[in-house]
Amino acid sequence: MIQLAVIGAGYWGPNLVRNFSQTPGARVAYVCDLDAAKLAPLAAQYPTLTTTRNYQDALGDPNVDAVVVATPVSTHQRLAVEALRAGKHVLVEKPLAATVQAAREIDAVAREVKRVLMVGHTFIYNPAVTKVHEYIQRGALGEIYYIDSARVNLGLHQFDINVIWDLAPHDVSMILYWLGQRPLRVSARGNSYTQDNIEDVAFVTLEFPGKVMAHIHVSWMSPAKLRRTTIVGSKQMIVYDDLEAAEKVKLYDSGVEQLALNATTRAELQRTYRVGDVLSPRLDVVEPLRVECKHFVECIVEGKTPRTNGDAGIAVVQVLEAATRSLREGGRTIEIGS
Amino acid sequence: MIQLAVIGAGYWGPNLVRNFSQTPGARVAYVCDLDAAKLAPLAAQYPTLTTTRNYQDALGDPNVDAVVVATPVSTHQRLAVEALRAGKHVLVEKPLAATVQAAREIDAVAREVKRVLMVGHTFIYNPAVTKVHEYIQRGALGEIYYIDSARVNLGLHQFDINVIWDLAPHDVSMILYWLGQRPLRVSARGNSYTQDNIEDVAFVTLEFPGKVMAHIHVSWMSPAKLRRTTIVGSKQMIVYDDLEAAEKVKLYDSGVEQLALNATTRAELQRTYRVGDVLSPRLDVVEPLRVECKHFVECIVEGKTPRTNGDAGIAVVQVLEAATRSLREGGRTIEIGS
Amino acid sequence: MIQLAVIGAGYWGPNLVRNFSQTPGARVAYVCDLDAAKLAPLAAQYPTLTTTRNYQDALGDPNVDAVVVATPVSTHQRLAVEALRAGKHVLVEKPLAATVQAAREIDAVAREVKRVLMVGHTFIYNPAVTKVHEYIQRGALGEIYYIDSARVNLGLHQFDINVIWDLAPHDVSMILYWLGQRPLRVSARGNSYTQDNIEDVAFVTLEFPGKVMAHIHVSWMSPAKLRRTTIVGSKQMIVYDDLEAAEKVKLYDSGVEQLALNATTRAELQRTYRVGDVLSPRLDVVEPLRVECKHFVECIVEGKTPRTNGDAGIAVVQVLEAATRSLREGGRTIEIGS
Amino acid sequence: MIQLAVIGAGYWGPNLVRNFSQTPGARVAYVCDLDAAKLAPLAAQYPTLTTTRNYQDALGDPNVDAVVVATPVSTHQRLAVEALRAGKHVLVEKPLAATVQAAREIDAVAREVKRVLMVGHTFIYNPAVTKVHEYIQRGALGEIYYIDSARVNLGLHQFDINVIWDLAPHDVSMILYWLGQRPLRVSARGNSYTQDNIEDVAFVTLEFPGKVMAHIHVSWMSPAKLRRTTIVGSKQMIVYDDLEAAEKVKLYDSGVEQLALNATTRAELQRTYRVGDVLSPRLDVVEPLRVECKHFVECIVEGKTPRTNGDAGIAVVQVLEAATRSLREGGRTIEIGS
Repeated sequence: MIQLAVIGAGYWGPNLVRNFSQTPGARVAYVCDLDAAKLAPLAAQYPTLTTTRNYQDALGDPNVDAVVVATPVSTHQRLAVEALRAGKHVLVEKPLAATVQAAREIDAVAREVKRVLMVGHTFIYNPAVTKVHEYIQRGALGEIYYIDSARVNLGLHQFDINVIWDLAPHDVSMILYWLGQRPLRVSARGNSYTQDNIEDVAFVTLEFPGKVMAHIHVSWMSPAKLRRTTIVGSKQMIVYDDLEAAEKVKLYDSGVEQLALNATTRAELQRTYRVGDVLSPRLDVVEPLRVECKHFVECIVEGKTPRTNGDAGIAVVQVLEAATRSLREGGRTIEIGS
Repeated sequence: MIQLAVIGAGYWGPNLVRNFSQTPGARVAYVCDLDAAKLAPLAAQYPTLTTTRNYQDALGDPNVDAVVVATPVSTHQRLAVEALRAGKHVLVEKPLAATVQAAREIDAVAREVKRVLMVGHTFIYNPAVTKVHEYIQRGALGEIYYIDSARVNLGLHQFDINVIWDLAPHDVSMILYWLGQRPLRVSARGNSYTQDNIEDVAFVTLEFPGKVMAHIHVSWMSPAKLRRTTIVGSKQMIVYDDLEAAEKVKLYDSGVEQLALNATTRAELQRTYRVGDVLSPRLDVVEPLRVECKHFVECIVEGKTPRTNGDAGIAVVQVLEAATRSLREGGRTIEIGS
Repeated sequence: MIQLAVIGAGYWGPNLVRNFSQTPGARVAYVCDLDAAKLAPLAAQYPTLTTTRNYQDALGDPNVDAVVVATPVSTHQRLAVEALRAGKHVLVEKPLAATVQAAREIDAVAREVKRVLMVGHTFIYNPAVTKVHEYIQRGALGEIYYIDSARVNLGLHQFDINVIWDLAPHDVSMILYWLGQRPLRVSARGNSYTQDNIEDVAFVTLEFPGKVMAHIHVSWMSPAKLRRTTIVGSKQMIVYDDLEAAEKVKLYDSGVEQLALNATTRAELQRTYRVGDVLSPRLDVVEPLRVECKHFVECIVEGKTPRTNGDAGIAVVQVLEAATRSLREGGRTIEIGS
Repeated sequence: MIQLAVIGAGYWGPNLVRNFSQTPGARVAYVCDLDAAKLAPLAAQYPTLTTTRNYQDALGDPNVDAVVVATPVSTHQRLAVEALRAGKHVLVEKPLAATVQAAREIDAVAREVKRVLMVGHTFIYNPAVTKVHEYIQRGALGEIYYIDSARVNLGLHQFDINVIWDLAPHDVSMILYWLGQRPLRVSARGNSYTQDNIEDVAFVTLEFPGKVMAHIHVSWMSPAKLRRTTIVGSKQMIVYDDLEAAEKVKLYDSGVEQLALNATTRAELQRTYRVGDVLSPRLDVVEPLRVECKHFVECIVEGKTPRTNGDAGIAVVQVLEAATRSLREGGRTIEIGS
């Protein structure tokens, strides 16, 4: 039985406690938060849980095998490193850290102490995202040309990080996972309309080897919620719309090659809205966080490397850092070093 | 009765003939095209029409009052200038010309010969677009922060112009019309995947005075057609979706000010998809091109300046030219001179 | 070259003229209407057309091969019979006649004079409808259980016929075509809210041999337009939504047999919105009326029996007549005789 | 503090426990179920809860003020009466009982022992449903003509009750609540395709005084989930779509009176999809069951009559009973007695 301590009982913390509570082979032993008011309802709901305002209670308990860091990103480095040094396996909420340097340090410590380090990029455990990955892996899309993603909604402003750090980690982690490579260059444009220096709207471009491109639009100021990603390939194309209740993933049998081969006339295309068949595959009905929690426990028990390991976490932070820098330098192209 | 000659019987030409035929006070006298095969069906359908492969037949006819130039953009400058010099009023299809310099020349000649010059930015005559303009004019949106527009579809590649010149004129003309100003800076990123040097995907950013921003995504390679524009203001927001059959324009009573004043909690927003009421106003049911044709005839008869005059046409070309230049220089910011 | 006369230049007449004008092997020679104001625009648009207020001009012209009856339904019997007796092939707009008896007489005369009789059930020539027919024919749906159809919109009240006679012919003709059989029993409930004795809302039930059922909801008083038909089979199911721009037909791999075989748990179904894959097939982009016109001409030239022949037209009228009778007798079940 | 016992820990029981646990002034003391396996997870999650396989433990406990009956409908009469006779206030899950006679007995006993009897018609506590009620109450719709409701989905078959008893209680309770009247006549048609004598598809018609009509379509065999209700009035109309994430209620400024007054032409309507403005009001974001639980506790504490009292529960059962009878008698019209 893996005993866990969750540090941070804010928005996401209770979801982690609930899911780990229902993960076979795992048990949540501690929840830590500076704010006692956030601990009370968890204590009431999970009576066998120890709640504490001092996370070091948990780190010092030799029965605790693993620590989940679900605190503001500025504290990730300190808490993750401390937990790893205390011999715990660590799951850090996304993004891994506030800077590439901090992310690298966490990863280095994990390697040094030989503990599992996993980053909570939940979307990588989402059945829709893994289905898209599957299609790409088996070549169904042909050569990937570009990915376009929009993640916008209204009013959920953060006060410590900008909209890129808040929303884009989802898109960046999915895009890197699907493409299996890292961008060469990142640029971004955006603005802060409601708080000084906290950008609430941004348009981010990632350039990969061989003309492959990704574009991400994130906003806290859009009236109608969107979570929509298009993946354009030479053979087929996909639209993944996370707000669609029944048909989240649609595979369009209408790649660029088909367009040429079918000799569909311009006049016909002008009157129609599509070319080939559209297939919406059945997806597993499962909470992605449940899959993520199970994967973390398995990695600990079986000594496996997580799908979203330190490397994956660092790569995402590289993009976020470069994008914010570009945005503040007027959209300048930032080269991503190795 | 205004007598018209339409030069160019390609995709758009027949629409112009049909609409001018039904415009009170106007009569289509000539249709000219180098390709006789394109003239035949028009000759059959409109027996009183003179069709000719030589547009100079029309320019030389003193009964012709006005000329409509609906040919490829590379020929606009020559044909428009020639028609103006022949004393005709001129409606040029969008974009006005292939370069800012050419656009300026056409405009200068029109001023010199004191003839009406109008550019066929049809969307400016679309009831949805004018309804949005009305809301903005009366202050319903408060201060405008940014506009985000997507115009993507599948396979309608052009062979002489890139996707920015093909699709973005619609968005650029609407945005300039709504904001009533011109951008200070333009930048763009994109790629040509299927034809060398003809970009088929692009992301364009326009920066206006005072942090106002616009972003336009155009693509010929997207599996699902989109024509969707979001206008974000401090008081209210609008989504204009041209593919919506019944509710093209939606006004969201959920500006940034409301968010603050209502003290809607983060937790509540996380569970909901929206804040205030949503109003979808009734729109007139009319073909925008019909309104445009009527406006052109009125401007001629009453000596008025068209809503989409030479200045408006030049401003659009400035953005298109700057965007293409930026795209080819790796996304560099291009300053728009006065 | 088949020479045609179109009688009736109301809403549908100009569509018939336009489509027959573009049908190879056909030529519209006459358009007849009592209202000269309706003839004028057609005369202007089609200069080779003879327009007349007296349809007998057309019937008496030996060069006319075929007559299209597009007048109010109460006149169908007289005009169709007269045209057939004059030796013309006849296409009658749907519904074939105002009573079963009248429909039968038209059909009998057509058989007697050995002329083609076709009924203008346009939907039978719609690519979406024929695609559904194809799936059913090849057994993709398994055993058909029931069909549910809604055809509602706002305000297009008729003044001579009720909503069943106005809208339900589409659904009835599709359902009979797909099932390949005729109902044993018909019943209907509804009301007239805005005009005395002209029902504007109705719910119609058709019972076929072997528990197969169809339900049709028609209304002139529904705020949001619907054209949506569901076909439920033992193996797969279809939703055909004619208002969907891009995905009119969806084939659900989720028949009743799958439900049993997959042993999908109740709990999982409660969280999901669907079971198997969904396929939206590519459909031809063609105007159904164009296909219908072509088919009529082919039947004349090649001596074939139309897909929507007199029998099909009579069967539809039987259902409409029975439904109206049931509705006026409080929903009583009406047996359809042979 | 009101102490509650919940009898029945099946699908709905845990939702009741969760919501009453978070209702101020209430405390869940007991959960009873014959199946110990259903009790275990509740015991684990709510450690202060007494779980028992014998509901009489709860009825016999004088500290228990109220009992919630969430068992199969065939047991409602016995359990509700027993609980009332034991002096408890009672909330019975919908439908109140399996027959009108049983429902009347429960209500009579509640009156006799002067205890609160409430029926769990959750939709009556749904913000969308109360918003529609509000519009109707203030006359915004004018005279109500008819209501059309569809509640269909795939595969959630019941084994003890038919689809009318399973799904229609929602629609019937809403319709009676909105109209403030009871139907004079009920009829239904449907079939059982997958289980003998358990109808899985039904079409139900309710006739109210003065030509007002309601139609309800329920099915367990429809591939695409629908929860859509249209309310047609003389002044305005409403569509309430419970599956819409952001715009559940839409108010159409397009009643029959407007149609007449505006003199909108038939031609224009044919091209458009709507008439007046559409307003989608902001709705409270709250779980309807939470509101229901709070209301039950308030009725007990303040001695109020619940909005969904015994009378309301009886009225719904009358319709369900009549509909099933009609369905089994070939759609015969059933008069609802007083």
